[in-house]
Amino acid sequence: MLMLALDASAKAASAALARDGVLLGQYFQNCGLTHSATLLPMAEALLKNCGLSVSDVDIFAVTKGPGSFTGVRIGVATVKGLAWAQDKPCIGVSTLEAMAWNGLCAPEGSLICCAMDARRNQVYNALFCAENGQAQRLCPDRAISLAELVADIRAREDFSAVFVTGDGASLTFAALQEAGIPAILAPEVVRHQCAWGACLAAQGKTPESVHDLLPSYLRLSQAERERQARLAREENKESQI
Amino acid sequence: MLMLALDASAKAASAALARDGVLLGQYFQNCGLTHSATLLPMAEALLKNCGLSVSDVDIFAVTKGPGSFTGVRIGVATVKGLAWAQDKPCIGVSTLEAMAWNGLCAPEGSLICCAMDARRNQVYNALFCAENGQAQRLCPDRAISLAELVADIRAREDFSAVFVTGDGASLTFAALQEAGIPAILAPEVVRHQCAWGACLAAQGKTPESVHDLLPSYLRLSQAERERQARLAREENKESQI
Repeated sequence: MLMLALDASAKAASAALARDGVLLGQYFQNCGLTHSATLLPMAEALLKNCGLSVSDVDIFAVTKGPGSFTGVRIGVATVKGLAWAQDKPCIGVSTLEAMAWNGLCAPEGSLICCAMDARRNQVYNALFCAENGQAQRLCPDRAISLAELVADIRAREDFSAVFVTGDGASLTFAALQEAGIPAILAPEVVRHQCAWGACLAAQGKTPESVHDLLPSYLRLSQAERERQARLAREENKESQI
Repeated sequence: MLMLALDASAKAASAALARDGVLLGQYFQNCGLTHSATLLPMAEALLKNCGLSVSDVDIFAVTKGPGSFTGVRIGVATVKGLAWAQDKPCIGVSTLEAMAWNGLCAPEGSLICCAMDARRNQVYNALFCAENGQAQRLCPDRAISLAELVADIRAREDFSAVFVTGDGASLTFAALQEAGIPAILAPEVVRHQCAWGACLAAQGKTPESVHDLLPSYLRLSQAERERQARLAREENKESQI
């Protein structure tokens, strides 16, 4: 079973190819160019250089969010297009779950805290623990303030330290340290979500049809928030007339 | 300062691009095709997809061994060719040192044990510790039996556990466990040397000229061993005449 996975959910983007859960290759870029220009060429180069073509792929996987609204849309739309054109199944996985695999290098008994900077004083977060070489989810994906996250972690007792990974790791690490909670900042080599993580997270999950694959933003986009605020203001004005 | 690094020292191969120590991209392949066919196309795709060309590269780095004799020769020869053609400096780094950066995710106080399977009951090995986010070398690269490695580690006292990485990690981990030495097997995501590790290991090292860059095999190749044995037999015969 050949899987092609894409991640474009943050500043970096990557494409990975795995056969039966074993990595054949990964192409990762963080050079500042737009994902819409780099993602497909990465997938194309990876397939070609492995002596394969897109028609050899049995299933497509993608990080469906949370993450950058534009990035997630690019990743999900690309995989929907590839899967639809090839009439193949696809799987969308949580970006935080794809990242949790980085935490398998954490010391035994650690809580794996995946955190992406969601701006507006929030992080996109989920908590995991390592069990038999797998990342086991402890809570659903959520957009949460650092204060709420610290309070949630403080209420948990069954961990030796909190291993923090993701582009919100530094923020979260500082908040945990300030709260006196033992924390480990993931070293740079394991601080990014990547397409290989998406492959690992997709293993054993039920494939979905192209039509069912949708982004998971967790929050409304800025445009939607502003539209809702404008509609509310207009409604308010009308009711005052 | 733009650095292009290559690794072809084992089954996998990779190319990485870093600007002033920050990763711009890495292309990693482990699909079983020969490095002589995959290494340059990886470097080419990486540069092109980052909007750069080989003439933009200021310095070339490579893992110069230990490792597969053929792989090391392909990596070193490729970088010598690139640097010579561009009249740019190059740096050869120890494969084990490039791999040691994986160990930065080890628990504090760990001994980082890099181990490549060298066959003939030996591993290529070097020991490191993490200090201020850097891998600090504790001994030179060596080809050593597992028994000798276990004895060396047992004689050291200043570590909490041994974090074992590299394609000889499973072998070494088993030997340490059998000897009752606390050991951690690096999870799959941080068990391979890679070109990014070569970039990190090359930081701050003095560049060398193309002519000075040479492979570091640590042992004689099979062909050389057999030739030496044959010469010794012939000499022996002659002296008996």
